[in-house]
Amino acid sequence: MITMYKLLEQINSPNDLKKMKSYQIKLLAEEIRNFLVESVSKTGGHLASNLGVVELTLALHTVYDSLQDKIIWDVGHQSYVHKILTDRRKQFSTLRQYKGISGFPKRYESSHDHFDTGHSSTSISAALGMACSRDLNKEKHSVIAVIGDGALTGGMAFEALNHAGQSKKNIIVILNDNAMSISHNVGGLSNYLNKIRTNAVYSKVKDDFESLINNIPAIGKSVFKTAEKAKDCIKYFFVPGILFEELGFKYIGPIDGHDYSQLCNVLKNCKNIKGPILLHVMTKKGKGYQPAEKYPDKFHGVSPFMIETGKPASSSNKISYSEVVGNTLVECGEKNNRVVAITAAMPAGTGLSGFQKRFPERFFDVGIAEQHAITFAAGLAATGYKPFFAVYSTFLQRGYDQIIHDICLQNLPVTLLIDRAGLVGNDGETHHGAFDLSFLLPIPNLTIMAPKDGSELKKMIQYSISENKPIAIRYPRGSAINLQSPSENNDIITGKGEILYHEGNDVLLIAVGHMNAMVLGLCNKLKENSIDATLINPRFIKPLDEDLIIKNATKAKKIYVIEDNAKIGGVGLQIQGLLNKYSIYKEVHTIGLPDEFIQHGDTSTLYDLYGLTEEEIFKRICEAFQKKAIKNIVITR
Amino acid sequence: MITMYKLLEQINSPNDLKKMKSYQIKLLAEEIRNFLVESVSKTGGHLASNLGVVELTLALHTVYDSLQDKIIWDVGHQSYVHKILTDRRKQFSTLRQYKGISGFPKRYESSHDHFDTGHSSTSISAALGMACSRDLNKEKHSVIAVIGDGALTGGMAFEALNHAGQSKKNIIVILNDNAMSISHNVGGLSNYLNKIRTNAVYSKVKDDFESLINNIPAIGKSVFKTAEKAKDCIKYFFVPGILFEELGFKYIGPIDGHDYSQLCNVLKNCKNIKGPILLHVMTKKGKGYQPAEKYPDKFHGVSPFMIETGKPASSSNKISYSEVVGNTLVECGEKNNRVVAITAAMPAGTGLSGFQKRFPERFFDVGIAEQHAITFAAGLAATGYKPFFAVYSTFLQRGYDQIIHDICLQNLPVTLLIDRAGLVGNDGETHHGAFDLSFLLPIPNLTIMAPKDGSELKKMIQYSISENKPIAIRYPRGSAINLQSPSENNDIITGKGEILYHEGNDVLLIAVGHMNAMVLGLCNKLKENSIDATLINPRFIKPLDEDLIIKNATKAKKIYVIEDNAKIGGVGLQIQGLLNKYSIYKEVHTIGLPDEFIQHGDTSTLYDLYGLTEEEIFKRICEAFQKKAIKNIVITR
Repeated sequence: MITMYKLLEQINSPNDLKKMKSYQIKLLAEEIRNFLVESVSKTGGHLASNLGVVELTLALHTVYDSLQDKIIWDVGHQSYVHKILTDRRKQFSTLRQYKGISGFPKRYESSHDHFDTGHSSTSISAALGMACSRDLNKEKHSVIAVIGDGALTGGMAFEALNHAGQSKKNIIVILNDNAMSISHNVGGLSNYLNKIRTNAVYSKVKDDFESLINNIPAIGKSVFKTAEKAKDCIKYFFVPGILFEELGFKYIGPIDGHDYSQLCNVLKNCKNIKGPILLHVMTKKGKGYQPAEKYPDKFHGVSPFMIETGKPASSSNKISYSEVVGNTLVECGEKNNRVVAITAAMPAGTGLSGFQKRFPERFFDVGIAEQHAITFAAGLAATGYKPFFAVYSTFLQRGYDQIIHDICLQNLPVTLLIDRAGLVGNDGETHHGAFDLSFLLPIPNLTIMAPKDGSELKKMIQYSISENKPIAIRYPRGSAINLQSPSENNDIITGKGEILYHEGNDVLLIAVGHMNAMVLGLCNKLKENSIDATLINPRFIKPLDEDLIIKNATKAKKIYVIEDNAKIGGVGLQIQGLLNKYSIYKEVHTIGLPDEFIQHGDTSTLYDLYGLTEEEIFKRICEAFQKKAIKNIVITR
Repeated sequence: MITMYKLLEQINSPNDLKKMKSYQIKLLAEEIRNFLVESVSKTGGHLASNLGVVELTLALHTVYDSLQDKIIWDVGHQSYVHKILTDRRKQFSTLRQYKGISGFPKRYESSHDHFDTGHSSTSISAALGMACSRDLNKEKHSVIAVIGDGALTGGMAFEALNHAGQSKKNIIVILNDNAMSISHNVGGLSNYLNKIRTNAVYSKVKDDFESLINNIPAIGKSVFKTAEKAKDCIKYFFVPGILFEELGFKYIGPIDGHDYSQLCNVLKNCKNIKGPILLHVMTKKGKGYQPAEKYPDKFHGVSPFMIETGKPASSSNKISYSEVVGNTLVECGEKNNRVVAITAAMPAGTGLSGFQKRFPERFFDVGIAEQHAITFAAGLAATGYKPFFAVYSTFLQRGYDQIIHDICLQNLPVTLLIDRAGLVGNDGETHHGAFDLSFLLPIPNLTIMAPKDGSELKKMIQYSISENKPIAIRYPRGSAINLQSPSENNDIITGKGEILYHEGNDVLLIAVGHMNAMVLGLCNKLKENSIDATLINPRFIKPLDEDLIIKNATKAKKIYVIEDNAKIGGVGLQIQGLLNKYSIYKEVHTIGLPDEFIQHGDTSTLYDLYGLTEEEIFKRICEAFQKKAIKNIVITR
């Protein structure tokens, strides 16, 4: 492993790169790859996609001026090389850590970052907006969107292509085609790109056709009477990117995304072409690091790993919530052949790989297409199937209208399995699942649940199969805890919560989902300090267990709601509304996420920051009871 | 005007149509058009799109069995002919009226309606779900999505095409191409379809090419060495729908959508073709009724009109909220060249036609593409412009993630002009703007306003130009009222509300937006009954004017919040949260929309139904004060 970065250390801005001799670039690229592997092996992060765009990023920064020219990185997880070249190499050890640099482009970090990204398929829209600004200002700089073939399946990318194609604006869309989303890419578009990549018929036909035209001019002329018609026909004959051409783009490619010189030449030429350009660049995800080349999906996003083997630096044999989902769905699928599962390009992340293997005909990977996924599920449900759509909370935002309009309005029995609800940690602002309860609660007909642990999650999935209605189950990222439940009846009954702890009525605690584990600890700590608590796990966020809550709220001196969701529109506010309805006038303290975007950092730091820890809540409650907390720290929240 | 429907009256189900002789169909089509014009001239509704699909609908019901075969009408406003043919002719006078038949497909209305629609671009997703169900069940029926060229620009339609193309499922997508959204269609796709429709090169080249191949076999062979290659080349040569073919569809067309016999023949053939089919049908919006043919956009959705002239049956010279928006933006645009305006295919509906004419270079119609519209706006805002995106509340749901992720996370100064917030009336369930406050409130960095009247709306727009932050302004459908405002200071100041009425502290009323007009009347009525009220118009829904509300809430005996938004997550709950924060324990009564989908009907009926009228609230308050209301009606809410 090289740990010397002789060339890389000379680059403190893209201008230093521009001074470099072209023979040095190959070595520089190698240094960057080594730097990426070494750095990400320690911090964790997105690796394979960044290894794939080393030469492309070098070429972009050689040809363009990223302070003037706007380069928009779609999704943005592939912006590490860009960050390394634009002043952030020295901070790279802080990547994705609390107060460190972000794993995604951030305008606040650098004036080389022109648009924040994180979710897929936004870059062409943003770039087109910037191109329109530029033209209104009569400026001349370039605007470039770099988008993967996976992200291109997201509907909004197509909406943007459609608008850009007609606009005639100078905009360069670089299609970074590695035949992958996080997993292998799917869909008609993917097949089409694959055909371009692999089918020699195009270039062969082009040669043959030109020879036909040249050698038999008489016949040629009789067929193609005017030059105009001939041009049109020739275009249809051998332009591989006809799909993009038809939308109004000039298609260039496909070209080798690891050939720096060719990339520079083509990018230079692009500056002189008017109108929208689609430049098709072929790259290899994980390029240059064997484990990542071999398993690009596993090295899409990684935890710290050992460079020599590619194996995780620390291993956990705990089962994750996603795995609970996957295992439960396989079990349910065995018993019930109406159970079908859907993912939007994340079979592994959502735990569905096992279901996919076991029931390929009942498994649907629809690509990065949350809107379609939801209405597709509604179509399946309207004709007798029981679809489960497993999706990260933050990406579910993409299908909000479809949940309302296509699932709930028709009261169709689709279950939304909302993974990564609450805080996700290092991916930060764009990826926390902070809003799902707030945006789902107002939707009529929707039942919403949050399990306290892995085994309750399993039961909720089983429950949802027996119910003929729309259901959302939200659970966090990470290892599934398993709590001892004192309830006599552990069955999931519509609208019924459970009492997890009952010592007295000094304080009523209502905790959402996995927060219950922490709050159980809190209950014991309170008891040691002579404050007697009752803890309710509501199980159902909608409908709430009104009887249970009202009965206990009436007796309680103080009420605390603990939720890993935005306080605005969250469970605390629902409880306040409920008490108001029953004319119970008591202070309800909600401990949840504040009205701000939650930064990146490990989740324990973030929970601590927002007071969602046993210790912080303990201090607040002691303060409220005017008892001295163990440590006499001033409480600011 | 023919008012006899001799043939139509013989049709009580599609089976009766199947028995009809083909020479009768032309007359039947004419009768249906007359019926549509006569009926919609009385009820109002969607006319032009239905006139355009008469023959297509007849052909579909001739060839297919709509009880078994699933026909999904995208958007669904063009389903009137389908409804007339499937048992609902006699109820047609109740169209879009309270308790009458819906203007959109409804599964609860008929077993010929297989999926509820209303929003654009959902049909292919739903149809594909149904095709997957069918194949899992080993059934054989057809699944057909009928989608307009406008709806095809919505990203989720592309997501579905991408999935369907790879799936190889038997699914028929009928592209009903009339070159229109509500207004003229835009985008690269539209240009492409236009080229297919108008460019004779395709059929000509096809003939020429076949003659080439046939007449010069020797040369043909030397060029196209294998049959496989030749097939590929021929496809590129003359298939007009190459864009769809590349995605995995078999393209058929374009064919004349008003030629019943040809439609029947082609549809019959489609039954025997394996895999996904895209059938391109050309229709004329408004066909057969001159005023609608001439102004298809005006006759997209109409109020009752006079058949002879096409003019509205009753005219209003009141200015609408949408017009206030349009006029204000033109004024602002004159003064400030950073003001730009965006619509998603609704320049007229959102009031922006004037701006479009005056500032074509600063106006952007992006097609039916709300997701793109929002991120495109973010791109403009990130580079110094002040974009206004005018959009109906219900369609804003489509861009929820983009509001969070692309506008608010970067704190970009985009203003969302949310038209048709609250109840819209006859379009019903799919079109009410019932949720916007609930889903917008949890989003950090977003300022939310609701004007009490037209002149306040104007001021809020002017205010938003001077502010460098994301802003949402929500206002209802219909005529803008203008209230006398008693405030000394009528300026819009961040987070400041106003007192609109102040007689005493018996009851504090807090009304959202245009609800203030009705509540002002209520205040006077209460005074007559010796109940003294104070009315706050908060202006800012976020941030709320905490000082003003707390000050008055402290004094008030009872508090009522009146809002035309879902009660869950709405303003009433925010006020409860606020009082709780300041330890003010008082009953807060929220009068808003219940936790159910709001049906169709005229808005006054609906307001009455949900207690959002002066009389209903008066009764409730009198009841609370145990005073006898004028009419002694039992209050059930």
